[in-house]
Amino acid sequence: MQYDTIYNIFSLVIASQLFTSIFLVISLPRVLPRYRQALTVAAIVCGIAAYHYFRIFNSFTEAFVTEAVGGRGDYVQVAGASFNEGYRYVDWLLTVPLLLLELVAVLALARKVQSSLLTRLIPAAALMIALGYPGEMASDNLTRGIFGLLSSLPFAYILYVLFVELTKSLDRQPATVRKTISLLRLLLLATWGVYPIAYLLPGLGIDGSDAWVGLQIGYSVADILAKCLYGLIIFRIARMKSFSDDQAFAEVELTLEEATSLKQPLVQNRRK
Amino acid sequence: MQYDTIYNIFSLVIASQLFTSIFLVISLPRVLPRYRQALTVAAIVCGIAAYHYFRIFNSFTEAFVTEAVGGRGDYVQVAGASFNEGYRYVDWLLTVPLLLLELVAVLALARKVQSSLLTRLIPAAALMIALGYPGEMASDNLTRGIFGLLSSLPFAYILYVLFVELTKSLDRQPATVRKTISLLRLLLLATWGVYPIAYLLPGLGIDGSDAWVGLQIGYSVADILAKCLYGLIIFRIARMKSFSDDQAFAEVELTLEEATSLKQPLVQNRRK
Repeated sequence: MQYDTIYNIFSLVIASQLFTSIFLVISLPRVLPRYRQALTVAAIVCGIAAYHYFRIFNSFTEAFVTEAVGGRGDYVQVAGASFNEGYRYVDWLLTVPLLLLELVAVLALARKVQSSLLTRLIPAAALMIALGYPGEMASDNLTRGIFGLLSSLPFAYILYVLFVELTKSLDRQPATVRKTISLLRLLLLATWGVYPIAYLLPGLGIDGSDAWVGLQIGYSVADILAKCLYGLIIFRIARMKSFSDDQAFAEVELTLEEATSLKQPLVQNRRK
Repeated sequence: MQYDTIYNIFSLVIASQLFTSIFLVISLPRVLPRYRQALTVAAIVCGIAAYHYFRIFNSFTEAFVTEAVGGRGDYVQVAGASFNEGYRYVDWLLTVPLLLLELVAVLALARKVQSSLLTRLIPAAALMIALGYPGEMASDNLTRGIFGLLSSLPFAYILYVLFVELTKSLDRQPATVRKTISLLRLLLLATWGVYPIAYLLPGLGIDGSDAWVGLQIGYSVADILAKCLYGLIIFRIARMKSFSDDQAFAEVELTLEEATSLKQPLVQNRRK
């Protein structure tokens, strides 16, 4: 039953990532060209994640086989084969910097502010993942702890940039968009928080097959929220900003009633 | 653990090449039509590399199998099966001339200058790869050395064309673009420099499984930089040139603020 649970949840992740990616590519013409970079990156992130979950899925089915134990079919680990947790890090090394790029791209800030944010966020994100990998691969808890701690430093820096530095750039965004961006940052904080917790579980002595299944479910759910839901919120922001930038585009994309109702709060906001 | 490292790094290359290729195809409408040839070639190069890394990956998993050694699962080489290094040469034979084509295409020079550069660069690139292959396949160091030396001659000629001949054609490019093109040439020099070094390692008596792992990581990282990063810089140059050629296109693709901030340095530059 544990085997089936993992099997189904991995398949759920593949379906979610693949079809969010396809949805975002199809939806490109539904935002103004200036927001398509953000959507393209969001689609690529979900595509990369789908690819890696295919690999994770294969690694999982190769590491465990059915064996008839007392009349029941039980799944046992294949001697020598081991489930390759490294795929997750390869995935994160590519996708985590891109998730930050999405967020900055959808804001469409002045070029100087954009490149200043990106030159700080992207190396920090890559460093965070690279420092986590030796800890995950290590067998002793001390090494795991040291690399976990080192990896938290760039993580803290990313949070600082997102919650302190970025806030200054939000003033020029429409009010409805500001709210959604705050939501996006909270989603990022909540979902990224799952990874260090999962990382620490073996160190806390929480082990065994139940813990392992819990860990895989935790990572999988976090990956769906942090990539698919995140990408869809980016799409929503891009749509809202497109309508706010270009009334004619809003009237083509929406009914006149919708477009008008959307316009009012923005106008009110400008009056404030 | 060496097995997992190689496994993960090959998978990283596949993901990078495949999704850079998809990204570039999706991004075609985001540059002016005159720069789409360069982007298409860049996408094809990454696609070809992704295909060959699938092959390299399979060749690797077939050449090594798990064997339970004293309770642990160790990876040993399958008797008779050998890892096929030739795939890399087939890849390079196709992609290296195309990388030079990308560079020339994105410059959008006068047709005569273009064909003069290409008729010299492309045969030189093909010759360089073709001469390297017999050396890589040879078992003795003398043959390896001779073909290595022969292969360096077209390599030196390519560098001469890129750094001496091409420089004359750069004057007509916008200043920001000139800088990025210089960066691209340096990237090309730095990454292509990895290949002859890797080629010489066995001749220097550096061998064994650690050296082999190092070599595979070196080739993989060089391939990511020389094809994916290179393709993304080509995309960036194509974007910058599109904006510089057509102010109306820049205003559609960027916010007014971005488009204006982009325009100023270009105008200032023309005044100088």
